[in-house]
Amino acid sequence: MSKQLEFVYDVVSFPTYLAWTQLPTIAEEAGCRLRMTPVFCGGIFKSTGNPGPLSIPAKRKWYFDDLIMRAKHLDVPFVMNPHSPIQTLPIMRGVFVAEEREETDAYVKTMFEAIWVHARNLNEVDEVRATLVEAGLDADAYFAEIQRDDIKSRLRKNTDDAVARGAFGVPTFFVGDQMFFGQDRLDFVQEALRSR
Amino acid sequence: MSKQLEFVYDVVSFPTYLAWTQLPTIAEEAGCRLRMTPVFCGGIFKSTGNPGPLSIPAKRKWYFDDLIMRAKHLDVPFVMNPHSPIQTLPIMRGVFVAEEREETDAYVKTMFEAIWVHARNLNEVDEVRATLVEAGLDADAYFAEIQRDDIKSRLRKNTDDAVARGAFGVPTFFVGDQMFFGQDRLDFVQEALRSR
Repeated sequence: MSKQLEFVYDVVSFPTYLAWTQLPTIAEEAGCRLRMTPVFCGGIFKSTGNPGPLSIPAKRKWYFDDLIMRAKHLDVPFVMNPHSPIQTLPIMRGVFVAEEREETDAYVKTMFEAIWVHARNLNEVDEVRATLVEAGLDADAYFAEIQRDDIKSRLRKNTDDAVARGAFGVPTFFVGDQMFFGQDRLDFVQEALRSR
Repeated sequence: MSKQLEFVYDVVSFPTYLAWTQLPTIAEEAGCRLRMTPVFCGGIFKSTGNPGPLSIPAKRKWYFDDLIMRAKHLDVPFVMNPHSPIQTLPIMRGVFVAEEREETDAYVKTMFEAIWVHARNLNEVDEVRATLVEAGLDADAYFAEIQRDDIKSRLRKNTDDAVARGAFGVPTFFVGDQMFFGQDRLDFVQEALRSR
């Protein structure tokens, strides 16, 4: 299985959640390996001067209307989290802890769903702890390990590398060195995978 | 035929050109009337504080790569016009002249294709004149009539009305009072038309 779909993600983003729900089917249909690349979207925005999708007031209503239509069209559970944007820097550092503990999928699923299905306020440390515990994940271990410098560096490196390869937000996808941006471009991603 | 698809457009925009090429098929399939609403996109951007799609340098490459992929996918002729952005204020005023002369379709087609198929530099008045003449349109009449205050007012009114109804750029579509933005949302437009 040499074909690979790389998914550059931060759980902060609703469109990224929507894309994430589609990945298993897409990877299976394409017969490709899925590479999950955690980044800190706030860092990408800062590096690229991207004011983010909500910077144009007139666009806000459409932004949410559109995403709700897409979620319904995809028939995936979702909620508009009133606490969004969540400060996901510690949560995304946690992905590297999860990798070491060999529970990445469970951790990422827990965090995406806590924010975009259960509308939890993960800006509150107690809510993050409760979310981890309820998912059977070792909250104490996560809270300790995300303080490590090497963990912080790895997230920063992933973020900088994504920017160097052309990313300006999430979700971003790479098929080889071909980049795609947005939950609404999964059809192009699938086309690129088919042509390999 | 009570169903209506409203297309809010300015020939300045490549994605708007792409959407325009799809309208006849969509209207026919949906059995709906097509209402063409000319606006001045620069005016919408100014009113809404929208810096436009090219304001984030890191996004520029993706913006064009993506549109080229879409154009190829749709199998429509296109060219990246090196003179873009074209100052389309006088050209969009011309749509109202075309309406009076009952040659709107020919005029709009001529202008979209001059910019996005033939890469003409419509920033040059001589090129606009040549484009009109070659299409069998009365250049002198257009050049005279677009100076009329009532013509200028009508474009300004359309532009202001579009902003008042939620538009922040082009192409924008309305099905009833439901708004859709972007050439990449024609699937949602079609779904909305089907459900009426």
